[in-house]
Amino acid sequence: NLPLVFIAGPCVIESEELVLTTAKQLAEIAARENLPLIFKCSFDKANRTSVDSFRGPGLDAGLEILTKVKQETGLEVTTDIHEPGQAAPSAEVCRILQIPAFLARQTDLLEEASKAASKHQGVVNIKKPQFVAPEDCIHAVKKCEAFGLDQLMLTERGTTFGYGRLVNDMRCIPIMQNMGTPVIFDATHSVQTPGGKSTGGQRDMIPFLARAAVACGCDGIFAETHPDPSQALSDGPNMLPLDQFANFALNLQKFRSLVNEI
Amino acid sequence: NLPLVFIAGPCVIESEELVLTTAKQLAEIAARENLPLIFKCSFDKANRTSVDSFRGPGLDAGLEILTKVKQETGLEVTTDIHEPGQAAPSAEVCRILQIPAFLARQTDLLEEASKAASKHQGVVNIKKPQFVAPEDCIHAVKKCEAFGLDQLMLTERGTTFGYGRLVNDMRCIPIMQNMGTPVIFDATHSVQTPGGKSTGGQRDMIPFLARAAVACGCDGIFAETHPDPSQALSDGPNMLPLDQFANFALNLQKFRSLVNEI
Amino acid sequence: NLPLVFIAGPCVIESEELVLTTAKQLAEIAARENLPLIFKCSFDKANRTSVDSFRGPGLDAGLEILTKVKQETGLEVTTDIHEPGQAAPSAEVCRILQIPAFLARQTDLLEEASKAASKHQGVVNIKKPQFVAPEDCIHAVKKCEAFGLDQLMLTERGTTFGYGRLVNDMRCIPIMQNMGTPVIFDATHSVQTPGGKSTGGQRDMIPFLARAAVACGCDGIFAETHPDPSQALSDGPNMLPLDQFANFALNLQKFRSLVNEI
Amino acid sequence: NLPLVFIAGPCVIESEELVLTTAKQLAEIAARENLPLIFKCSFDKANRTSVDSFRGPGLDAGLEILTKVKQETGLEVTTDIHEPGQAAPSAEVCRILQIPAFLARQTDLLEEASKAASKHQGVVNIKKPQFVAPEDCIHAVKKCEAFGLDQLMLTERGTTFGYGRLVNDMRCIPIMQNMGTPVIFDATHSVQTPGGKSTGGQRDMIPFLARAAVACGCDGIFAETHPDPSQALSDGPNMLPLDQFANFALNLQKFRSLVNEI
Repeated sequence: NLPLVFIAGPCVIESEELVLTTAKQLAEIAARENLPLIFKCSFDKANRTSVDSFRGPGLDAGLEILTKVKQETGLEVTTDIHEPGQAAPSAEVCRILQIPAFLARQTDLLEEASKAASKHQGVVNIKKPQFVAPEDCIHAVKKCEAFGLDQLMLTERGTTFGYGRLVNDMRCIPIMQNMGTPVIFDATHSVQTPGGKSTGGQRDMIPFLARAAVACGCDGIFAETHPDPSQALSDGPNMLPLDQFANFALNLQKFRSLVNEI
Repeated sequence: NLPLVFIAGPCVIESEELVLTTAKQLAEIAARENLPLIFKCSFDKANRTSVDSFRGPGLDAGLEILTKVKQETGLEVTTDIHEPGQAAPSAEVCRILQIPAFLARQTDLLEEASKAASKHQGVVNIKKPQFVAPEDCIHAVKKCEAFGLDQLMLTERGTTFGYGRLVNDMRCIPIMQNMGTPVIFDATHSVQTPGGKSTGGQRDMIPFLARAAVACGCDGIFAETHPDPSQALSDGPNMLPLDQFANFALNLQKFRSLVNEI
Repeated sequence: NLPLVFIAGPCVIESEELVLTTAKQLAEIAARENLPLIFKCSFDKANRTSVDSFRGPGLDAGLEILTKVKQETGLEVTTDIHEPGQAAPSAEVCRILQIPAFLARQTDLLEEASKAASKHQGVVNIKKPQFVAPEDCIHAVKKCEAFGLDQLMLTERGTTFGYGRLVNDMRCIPIMQNMGTPVIFDATHSVQTPGGKSTGGQRDMIPFLARAAVACGCDGIFAETHPDPSQALSDGPNMLPLDQFANFALNLQKFRSLVNEI
Repeated sequence: NLPLVFIAGPCVIESEELVLTTAKQLAEIAARENLPLIFKCSFDKANRTSVDSFRGPGLDAGLEILTKVKQETGLEVTTDIHEPGQAAPSAEVCRILQIPAFLARQTDLLEEASKAASKHQGVVNIKKPQFVAPEDCIHAVKKCEAFGLDQLMLTERGTTFGYGRLVNDMRCIPIMQNMGTPVIFDATHSVQTPGGKSTGGQRDMIPFLARAAVACGCDGIFAETHPDPSQALSDGPNMLPLDQFANFALNLQKFRSLVNEI
């Protein structure tokens, strides 16, 4: 009968100011509405479509800003890592280390993330790759266990469905929960439309898919949010405007309460 | 703020006795729990995997049995039709004429169904084909409108996802509702695993997907049910045991109430 | 060591004149280049996207025109049928009865087609549905055998691949040939892009896919062709211009010869 | 009118002995049959299904063995790299640096590979990810160009097609060639059946798909081969037995000659 967890924040650390402003507002909403909320922001978008795309401030500057977020808001933080060497420093700051979907089969990355997270009683959150069946996530789970990790989460973020489309197979949620791990539903990347000059998105589908996932029993919702998505430097078309976040989260909490009841 | 509608019954008319027994129990549940419920049963399974599979009693005998269901239970009934000539007689008995997914592009079938249903102030329920995008169901909608129909429903029953698998893209629900038509979620055929000697199913996934669909806003649930699915002559692996139906429906009604509230 | 067979002609019987003109040119090419060629044209496009789309002259007028084709060109002819009752009259005229992909699971249609073709020592050509695995075509094969048919062909025309796209899994060719049936590659419908106001196509991909299929061992090529595809009343974007047909076919015959050699 | 190029060798460096034995036999075939052939072997399988799977000798030991291959056979060599830091040392030895499909969007890896390959007038070979449309490979091409690379190849190795299946869309070959890059067809990984305890394969489909790809115009064939695939430490089910390689390659060269002629 746990409450629904939220992982939220802007896609990428565009600036210290943006990150702190957003984090403070999210912290306020979390406190006011009693939402468990972890702040998420990436220090590096390591797989952007174009070489000219904004990538972020990098590991060191990024972790400094995330440290400030913790200090100034009291929120726990999470970020995604792309190379084994980024695990240890990130785990010093982040309660959750997120493994990108494309990298979820890289054994060395899982090893370093598992060890670093374990050292700090932290969590590893593996995004189910777009090319992997939910049943086959058991292999990533077993790898992390072999590396001593005892707190793992899996995230559903859509599966390849022809070209330029993802689909959420909601069966992923109970199937992956049956492995003994909490399952997060990523409402942001699920509505991506990959391909073209830059990845697009269907923002209006976020509330529908998020509700469906909560009704299906997911343990948490991942939703990127930005004060002004139209100006965002990454993933604008599928981020939630920050001023809609509280309402979005409260509605989902109601579905969660109903799931807990029945 | 309409209640959730249920379309339920055994897959195929195995016998008059089975049909009447099941219909009476469903009518009792519907009355007791105040559920809008339409009884569904097929007079012919016209596209079974094997030539040896049971197909049903055929049009005339089937409609006689469905007429008895109406008389003895007061429930409205629905059935699926496969040829243009079956539309007129079926509409005499059935409030809803169901168009099978594989046949949803056959213009003549849509024409006769639309005309026959219109004549009796009835409804046509088109199953979205497994090979059609939700957006493209607009063409079937427009065809029916051109034939004078004013009560149309669309049903989501899964989309082809590689071989031997279907996936429910829950975005289908709001996308097809935006065409001005109610959308039914078919919880039975969505969990089919096509292929092999006979089509299999994942019955344990039914409640998860049905809840997701209701949370997503669907207008009704289609669920085949049978007193003993293990003995059923068609679709056994993905039918709901009749003694679980009331509980299944009540839980979904709670999600519907929440959707209506927010 | 059989030669490659061609099934070719305009998509739909737009007029007697178009059909006879095209058939005569194809007959001339076939004679000159020693190509086994069956003339194909539909008397009814029964599943067009829109109710306003051109459908064709219907069964009776269509069969009359196909009879003239036989008489005036000496070519064998084939057409697709959509209802069980169309099988017997069509088999009087057509050497091959083609079963549309969407209808390939309709047992009654397979039964009447099998019986009618058998009566005239004819052939049934089933298009593999876009939603069926090649392995599972064995069920259609067994149905036809049960109805007494001994000359069956299967046609690969693409499999659903996300929304609005088909993909040709070339493994279909040897897998279906292993059932003991010749396999035709439909180069026209494989390049359809379903969806939108009318189905589009990628004509420039036809020669690539056709060569791949021949190299993979297919027994024949289905290719719709029209004197002026830009003016065609159906499937224009994926038909081959008639003046390119001879060259197209000759190149494929070279690949066939190589396959026969090795 | 270039000849077909072959990239061949065992999946992983199981031992110096296996690698040298295989390389010598391949060199002999290449010389005898006049085949352009690059020897491929991985020093590390960085994304194996299980933590217990064999991974290989690692970068340094692996490059030493590949150096011996060059010295003792005169063959050029290639290997796949997984981290940016592996690019420079690998380019000292390998004419081609291969970017794994899962990592093909990692900008840093493309940057280091491009720079290292350029320094030695080498080539980068990017495998098209299973989750990317062929059209969208243009972004990886442009990234590499931005990093100064002028010799790039793309490899088709299948696209996600439901769970546990890949499909080769043969249109990928001309579409990616239109970007100005040679396209290699990976006949080994295309027949993988991902999922389950270890990735399986359909070895008997290799010749069919390879022929189709060559007929479609691909510039080269990637085929892993092993003296005894049943004993191989990785990818056994989809490697070609070494004693079948010469015949396999010669047949493909015949299709290539025909493509060059027409």
